[in-house]
Amino acid sequence: MTVRFWKGHGTENDFVLLPDVDDGLVLTAALVSRICDRRAGIGADGVLRVVRDGDGRFFLDHWNADGSRPEMCGNGVRVYARYLVAAGLAPLGPLEIATRGGVKTVEVTGDAVVVDMGPAVVGEPVLVDGVPATSVDMGNPHAVLPVPSVAALGVLSPSRLDVNVEYVETVAPDHLRMRVHERGVGETRSCGTGACAAVVAHVLGTGMARDVPVEVDVPGGRLVVTWRADGHVVMAGPAVLVAEGTLCAEWLQG
Amino acid sequence: MTVRFWKGHGTENDFVLLPDVDDGLVLTAALVSRICDRRAGIGADGVLRVVRDGDGRFFLDHWNADGSRPEMCGNGVRVYARYLVAAGLAPLGPLEIATRGGVKTVEVTGDAVVVDMGPAVVGEPVLVDGVPATSVDMGNPHAVLPVPSVAALGVLSPSRLDVNVEYVETVAPDHLRMRVHERGVGETRSCGTGACAAVVAHVLGTGMARDVPVEVDVPGGRLVVTWRADGHVVMAGPAVLVAEGTLCAEWLQG
Repeated sequence: MTVRFWKGHGTENDFVLLPDVDDGLVLTAALVSRICDRRAGIGADGVLRVVRDGDGRFFLDHWNADGSRPEMCGNGVRVYARYLVAAGLAPLGPLEIATRGGVKTVEVTGDAVVVDMGPAVVGEPVLVDGVPATSVDMGNPHAVLPVPSVAALGVLSPSRLDVNVEYVETVAPDHLRMRVHERGVGETRSCGTGACAAVVAHVLGTGMARDVPVEVDVPGGRLVVTWRADGHVVMAGPAVLVAEGTLCAEWLQG
Repeated sequence: MTVRFWKGHGTENDFVLLPDVDDGLVLTAALVSRICDRRAGIGADGVLRVVRDGDGRFFLDHWNADGSRPEMCGNGVRVYARYLVAAGLAPLGPLEIATRGGVKTVEVTGDAVVVDMGPAVVGEPVLVDGVPATSVDMGNPHAVLPVPSVAALGVLSPSRLDVNVEYVETVAPDHLRMRVHERGVGETRSCGTGACAAVVAHVLGTGMARDVPVEVDVPGGRLVVTWRADGHVVMAGPAVLVAEGTLCAEWLQG
């Protein structure tokens, strides 16, 4: 069996895509971990299997390197949509992509991919590192802390590990810098839902208008997040395809 | 321009091979670093460009991820030879491969690749971490320290950083375990010349006979090293090809 792949990333959150429109590939946590191994495999944060659901929509079959299957990933769905267009499976323009977290509307433009991440749910403030943090649920839980400078922070070790924690510096009313400590992972180069949570907290904290795009610089690049008046959060960001090829048959059997 | 690649590893020292038998590829330190980037590129410890020298021999054009060009790499030359056979560019059996450290004889067998690493030069003992260490030059400098257990060592931070330092546990007369701190890099999953140095120090320290294969377990796998009576050190180890494909044209231009 020949297994084809593509490798791509969104703000340096990287994925191996496995085109499987015939739904013939039996993916296991063990195979995903081998593929994601950065030295003995190809290396990635996760695998995105490209398959259709029962309704004929493309379905984001997303596996993390540890074999877990997340509901949604803002960076992953952008890379997935970019692949669909590059492979001629979908046209430029709005697309519906099914995920374990529901159907998402994604629009591939020339440079960026825009994703409707759904509504934000704001909760009661929580204390993180002794500071009141804004609680935002984007399908996964976030706590957003303002800081004077993300560059001045050392190793991130937040006092709460049961939520994703975003440390956010305000550069300008429409420009933030963010570092993120992801639940169960540690600091990462980027977190799409974290950038959304950061902008929601920023809009609430400053009282600025909805529908204004806010740039969020993460270590892996730049995302642009808009909290719309209708409550949905829309994220635009890069999605880059790096390489395509096939897995070696002997390695697959090994 | 289409740039083809293979990815492979030897004891988890991993490489992107760039087939370039027509010598048409202009490699730069910047492109090597982009390819080796583990999130925004393919990801590897280094690039091996496959090209011939003026005498028609295959030449190991080896670049590290930082753009430097090492003289020789025991893990890299095995992966390179495995590729030559897999791609039909060389038969199974002995091969001469030119490197910046001279011409090496490499033999590809079914499972392993055997490399004549050349003679070992033993120097005066040096103190590392307050312990006398055996100095072995394998084209690059090594200091070998005996330890009761490599598992019991914490983070490796040797007192000398101007040499590669091998911490070596004796499991049996013909079986060692090793962890290595590479000069300018830190701890790595494997170091081919380090495994050679460890066996030379072990043979000297125990007075055991030459020409006896000694297994060396490194974090990334197992190497088998023989210090021959003629002074040459021969290393056998795995070389695995993981994937092959092409770099995306847009990414290359980006």
